[in-house]
Parts: sequence; structure tokens; C-alpha cells
Amino acid sequence: MQWKHKDLLDTKELSKEEIASLLDKAEQFYTLNRNPIKKSDILKGKTVVLFFAEASTRTKTSFDMAGKRLSADTFAIGSSGSSMSKGENLKDTGLTLQAMQPDCIVIRDSSSGAAQYLAKNLDCSVVNAGDGWHAHPTQALLDAYSLKKVWNNSLDAFKGKTVLIMGDIQHSRVARSNRHLLQKLGVNIRVVAPSTLLPKDVKTWGVDVFTEMQDAIKDVDAVICLRMQFERQQAGLIPSIHDYVSRYCLTHKLLSLAKENAVVLHPGPMNRGIEIASSLADSGQSLILNQVEAGVAVRMAVLSSLILRSK
Amino acid sequence: MQWKHKDLLDTKELSKEEIASLLDKAEQFYTLNRNPIKKSDILKGKTVVLFFAEASTRTKTSFDMAGKRLSADTFAIGSSGSSMSKGENLKDTGLTLQAMQPDCIVIRDSSSGAAQYLAKNLDCSVVNAGDGWHAHPTQALLDAYSLKKVWNNSLDAFKGKTVLIMGDIQHSRVARSNRHLLQKLGVNIRVVAPSTLLPKDVKTWGVDVFTEMQDAIKDVDAVICLRMQFERQQAGLIPSIHDYVSRYCLTHKLLSLAKENAVVLHPGPMNRGIEIASSLADSGQSLILNQVEAGVAVRMAVLSSLILRSK
Amino acid sequence: MQWKHKDLLDTKELSKEEIASLLDKAEQFYTLNRNPIKKSDILKGKTVVLFFAEASTRTKTSFDMAGKRLSADTFAIGSSGSSMSKGENLKDTGLTLQAMQPDCIVIRDSSSGAAQYLAKNLDCSVVNAGDGWHAHPTQALLDAYSLKKVWNNSLDAFKGKTVLIMGDIQHSRVARSNRHLLQKLGVNIRVVAPSTLLPKDVKTWGVDVFTEMQDAIKDVDAVICLRMQFERQQAGLIPSIHDYVSRYCLTHKLLSLAKENAVVLHPGPMNRGIEIASSLADSGQSLILNQVEAGVAVRMAVLSSLILRSK
Repeated sequence: MQWKHKDLLDTKELSKEEIASLLDKAEQFYTLNRNPIKKSDILKGKTVVLFFAEASTRTKTSFDMAGKRLSADTFAIGSSGSSMSKGENLKDTGLTLQAMQPDCIVIRDSSSGAAQYLAKNLDCSVVNAGDGWHAHPTQALLDAYSLKKVWNNSLDAFKGKTVLIMGDIQHSRVARSNRHLLQKLGVNIRVVAPSTLLPKDVKTWGVDVFTEMQDAIKDVDAVICLRMQFERQQAGLIPSIHDYVSRYCLTHKLLSLAKENAVVLHPGPMNRGIEIASSLADSGQSLILNQVEAGVAVRMAVLSSLILRSK
Repeated sequence: MQWKHKDLLDTKELSKEEIASLLDKAEQFYTLNRNPIKKSDILKGKTVVLFFAEASTRTKTSFDMAGKRLSADTFAIGSSGSSMSKGENLKDTGLTLQAMQPDCIVIRDSSSGAAQYLAKNLDCSVVNAGDGWHAHPTQALLDAYSLKKVWNNSLDAFKGKTVLIMGDIQHSRVARSNRHLLQKLGVNIRVVAPSTLLPKDVKTWGVDVFTEMQDAIKDVDAVICLRMQFERQQAGLIPSIHDYVSRYCLTHKLLSLAKENAVVLHPGPMNRGIEIASSLADSGQSLILNQVEAGVAVRMAVLSSLILRSK
Repeated sequence: MQWKHKDLLDTKELSKEEIASLLDKAEQFYTLNRNPIKKSDILKGKTVVLFFAEASTRTKTSFDMAGKRLSADTFAIGSSGSSMSKGENLKDTGLTLQAMQPDCIVIRDSSSGAAQYLAKNLDCSVVNAGDGWHAHPTQALLDAYSLKKVWNNSLDAFKGKTVLIMGDIQHSRVARSNRHLLQKLGVNIRVVAPSTLLPKDVKTWGVDVFTEMQDAIKDVDAVICLRMQFERQQAGLIPSIHDYVSRYCLTHKLLSLAKENAVVLHPGPMNRGIEIASSLADSGQSLILNQVEAGVAVRMAVLSSLILRSK
């Protein structure tokens, strides 16, 4: 399959065939990364800029490894700290970077739409590595990769499966990107959260909405736990962390209500004992470390597909 | 031409032939950087240290790309935060770095003379990437490269041209390095600023000094805008930003007093609407993004000339 | 010699043969680093993570150069700033990093035992680049390398030599790692410090303990000066810096009491005029810059031995 898109901004824009193409490529890189020599030269002489205005060691390192293992030159750029209004600044920073002839800019930003803004204004490829609450497409792709591994290694097996996303749905780009991607593959999505952490427009999402874990988790095939952000309590969106844990923390007992071989995912970093019981995170039902490993492979697939696309 | 100098500290030390040699080399790298594969191996196995005590994402990234595209290994070092006096500390840091066998140290420092101090004390090459108000030679070289592109691609065309440098001349290493370089090429230099932002020794510069834009800009071939630093107002050097803008901000109307094909340069990052009208910065007369592109090529020329010089 | 250990945590665990093997390998890399082309491809396709929770430009850059000159891909990771308890956090960070398939993690941490904790929990190699007061094995190896260079280039020459370690012994991982390594080579160790800066268990160290420099330095073959940390005065462990300097600062006069060709080492960065007289640091008896140079070579030996070990 010849890749056509310049950018990867959201999973919403991907067809099922494109998802399959990326995950197939990722499979090859997953194997490469387990070899004694983890190196391909397909991106030699290419320039990848990692523009992370929001701190994120994990995602940045994953993209950095993806680039370097394909022999690209990578450059990390932090937030500019400019006193100018964000819009102007992002445009000028983007145009300045573009003038240095990068092949791809990977951007993480707290503003929803930052990646889209760059993509529209620049000729080089842009990968959204997380923009505000909006989207985090490589996270959804690596989650799908991890699920595919345990679901007969086939995207067809996704059809009719049920996945529960639990936690702070309202502020989660991970929830939004997973929802779009998994629905394309025929997965039924459920979300569960205190009503204060549910998006206002959740009725338009085409998902089943729950506020109680016992109901939500019944017979699901997989659970995606989201990281609890403690500032939500200060903002008055949850009464107390203790109350949240007692109602929503994913435990072995709760998971026993799901399908027999149900698996658990988490985008990391985890709050052990808050959104997920510590022993469950380390159990055989947890895909959490597989997700991290899949992340590098998926990002290698994304970078190489975009940069080497047919123009 | 065989390159002879160990270091690049200031444009003052460069002959016209040496400037021509660097810009010719830069031309090749400019072309390379527009290729699908932007990579040469001429600096493979060489070590370039980027020692930036002052924050500067743009210049640091430009040097980093220059090094990596020539296959050098690059290492970024920040300020040391030592409690020792600056002089001692710089010497020990320099000697320590040298013991690691770098081929070149690129230094940005707030102290005028920091690069010279290292160059005198170390055997490896030293490139001044900006030292206080003193010098920023690669900026002047990339400005000359950008002007050459629009002036018949010939250094001979510089002779008799008039370039206006506007803004905070007093605190600008960019102004000083450009003045030296352009005068060597036979360019007439004008400077314009409020008298509080003119250097005390400006009469010795061999330039025409103005305080009013309307007079200064008449019939010039190019304008180099300098970044306004807002702390100048706090220091009482300008009455107000509003007043500064009304008198000095470069607009289409002001530029219409210059030669017909006059071009505009800015070292970046810009304060749009302060020293330059936003629409002018984006117009066809602006060389601002060309400067950024030229920057990587010029730095590739500088690094390779110094490191591969005949010894 | 086939290398067997997965990790390098402490010099205590190394046999004399293993020390010899590392220093022999370092000799080859020392030569390589003085070549015009400082590059080997023996670690091409290998991944080295530099996980430095404590700031240390010098050691981090030394490991970074070691990795890159052997063609490894290197990745610098800072402290995570997580609000979780340290133990949990270190484990999760370690497991997350491991899932990215690194071949080696180099860790610097303020907690004694951090490296050991990672080594026990991870399959990849772990190098301790300094953990609290506990150990700093590559520092001891590079010190031994520097001493070997001046001692007939032979480890046999270490037998019967006397080395004085001076300064804040109590809080020094450098002192501890040097003591273990040098004792294995048959060196007699002396330590000298105000009694408040001596470890409580120093009697079990098998070293000669002094509190006065004049006595301690008599007839020694080498002196290792430790960096004075000024917070010791605030903690009441020394009456005043002035008093410390007058009693312990290593001067030419004090060194004249040592053997005729006695040499001086310091792990850096130095406080000139505090623990060592400035002119002595720059004299022919000082090995300080040799230590820095040896550091890169020794770390190349360590990284390649561990990563390419027989499994």
C-alpha cells in the first residue's frame, strides 16, 4: 500500500486499510527491535524534529528511538517561552523550523489544534504527539497493536469486541483517539467515569456511557485505564481521591466481571493504587509494558510511512 | 582554497577571499539540504560540542543540524551553574571539554570575549555563536549569503550597495558582525536608532548614523531589522514601546522610500508589529526564512572548513 | 577474555583480571580517540539510555561520547519529577525503559542502591554512574587507568604503592569505589579528613586513617583530592571553609612531603584554592585532565564489554 497523507493528526482521518498498513509495518519494526542489531537505514539523511512544548519524557524518547533506529537525524526542541501570543509564535516557530528542511515535525502541545495548525501551514510532515484534550493518534495505534497481538493477530477479530475506557474521559485525548480508531474496526466502546469527568457531547460519540464500574465492566474484552490527574480534585470535579479510588480503581475483583481473557491497558505513567490496583498492573492480564514496546514500533511505522510516502 | 584558521571568532578577521570561500561551500550544502537525502559523511568520526550557556534554541538547532548532516557526533552542554567566578570556570570547563577530544566547540555566552578566551586556551577549533554584544559571525555570514542570492549571486555586486541596520545597535552583536563583514565587501553601512541605543564609539565605525527612519532608509538596497529587547524600556533607554513603534517600526510605507527591490532581513525571533510590520515580514521582500535556511548551510561550511583545515 | 557480568555496579565485584581486561580495552579506545577519525561501529544498532536524575554534565557527556563513538544510539532521560514514592517510580520507569529494548541503562541517582535496584529488576545491562555515597565504578576505573599510565603502564606496579584519599571521605562514592579497586591491586590506602568527615565504619575499610595532612601525605605515591561540598559547612561538619583550606588544601609544599614523582588526581569539578592549590592543579604532577580523557576511553570499554558480553 502506498501511503498518501502528509500528516498524522488524528485517528479519525485513517481508513481501516491505512490502520492495517501501519500496524503491518509496525510488526516488522517490532521484530527488528528484538534483534541484536536494531537498525535500519531507510530514513538515513532525513531530519525529524521533536517539538515538545509539554514535558513528556516517555513519548519523546519513544519517537526519538523510532527516528534513530531508522537512521534519521533527530532534534529535540522545547517550549519557546516567548511572550508573544501563542498563535503567532507557533506559526513563526513552525516556519522557522521548516526553513531548516525537516522531513517531519513531531509536536506535543497543550493546545488542541496545534498540530493541525502546523500541518496546514507547513510543507513537511507533521505528527500529532498529543494536543490538549483533542487527539493522540500514535497512542491509539499502539493500543490497537497491543490488542491485535492478543486477538488472533488479526484486525478482523476486533469486530464485535467490547472495550471499556475508564477514568477522566472529558480531558483525555487518549480516549478520543482510541474511540475513533476502535470504532472503525467495529469495536463497541463503553466509557465509565463520574459524570463530572464525562464530556458534554458524549451522547454524540456512539458509545455506551456508564457511571458505575460494576455495570460498565460486565463482559468487556478489554479495559483501557486512563491516568487520574490530581488537579481534577482541586478543580472540584471529584469529591476526593479516596472516593474515586473506592468507586473506580480497577481491581482483580472488578476485572473478574469482564470476559475471561480480558486484558488491561494504560497509557502510562500509572498511579498505582489510584486508577489501577498495583498487582493487576503487573499481572498477566496487563498489556502495559507491551504497549510501551509497541509504541516504538508503531512510531517507526508512522515516521517511515509519512516521510517515504509517494508524492 | 585551503582553510587556515583554527577558530571563527569574528567577521573582522576574515578576508574577502575567505568570506567567498565560506559562501561558496555554503552554496553546495544549501543544495544538499534541499535533496531528499540530506547527508554527507565528511565529518564522520568528528566531535562537535555545542556549549550554549545562553538559551538559544534556534541557533543551537541550526549548528546541531549542520553537524549531524555532515555525520559529526554532536553534544549539547548547558550552563554549568558553578559558584566559581566566571573566568576560572570557563577555563576549567574548556580544558575539561578539550580533554574529551572534541574537534570543535561552538560557544554561545553572555560575556563578550568568552569565545576568544576559549580559543586562546584550547587546541580544538572554537566557533563563536554569539558572545554578549561583541560578535556573531555566522549570523553575518548567513545574512551575506541571503543577500548574495538576490544580488546576482556575486560578491562583486555588494560593492557600492547601501545597507541600513536599524534598532538597538548598542547592544547588538549582529550589528557589529554585519558591519565588519559588509564593509569588507564594499557595502556602505547606515545605522538608525534612538540616540540612547547607539554605541558611544559609533563615530569610529565608518558608518552613516541616523536617528530618523525617513532619512535613513532613503535609497538603501537592504534593511537589517534588529530584535527590540523589551528590557531596554525598563532601563529607560526608550520612552515607551508605543513611541518606539511609531518612529522605528519598519512598514511598507517606510520601505517604499528605499530602492525599488530593497529586501528586509531579521535575525529572529521577530517581534511582529514592534520592529517590523507583520505583513512586511511575510512579504516577497522579506528574506527572513531564507536566512534561516542559509544558516544551516553556512554553519556546515564553517564546521567543515575549520575541522578539515590544513594543519 | 570473555566478559560475563550483565552490569557494572561497584568496583567491589570486579576481579583483578576483569579490571585488567577493562583497562586493556580502554587503552585501544584511548588511542582511537586521538585519531583524526574517532569512530568504531562495534555498537551500531545498540541503544544506550543515559538516565541521570542528578545533574552531571561532565559524566553524562563522557558516557554520551563513549556511546556515540562506538556508533550506539544514545538517549538522555532526566528525573521524572513524579509525585510517587521513589521506589515505585524507579521500578516503573525502569520497566518502561526496558520495554523500549535498550541494551544498556547508565544511571546516576542520589539514592545509594538505585543502580542495583534497576539491575536486579531489568534484563538489560545497567551501569552505575554514581549512586549517592555508595559507588562510582567508572570513576575508580579511570583513576586506575590514569595511574597505570604513569606507573610503568602495568597493573603489577600498583602493588605496594601508597595512595592518599583526602577530603570528604564520608559522603564520597569516589573514595569508596577507589578504595575497593586499588586494594584489589595491592595498593595501600590512606584517608585524611577532619574527623567529622570520616565514615563511622572507616575502621573496617582496611585503610590508614589520618586527620592531619602533614602526617598523611608522607611518602605517598599519589593523592586523590575530593571535591569539597560547601553544604558541609552549613551542616556544621567543618567549622569554616577558611579553616578547612588552611589545614587540608593540597599545596606544592604539602606535596613535597610525598614521594618525588607523586601525582595528584581530582574527579572534578575542582574548587581551586579550596581542596587543591590552583597552580598545583595545572602543574606537571596533576593528572586531572588525563583523568577526563581516560574517562571516555574507560566508558567505551565498559559499554562495549557489557553490551557485547557472551550470553
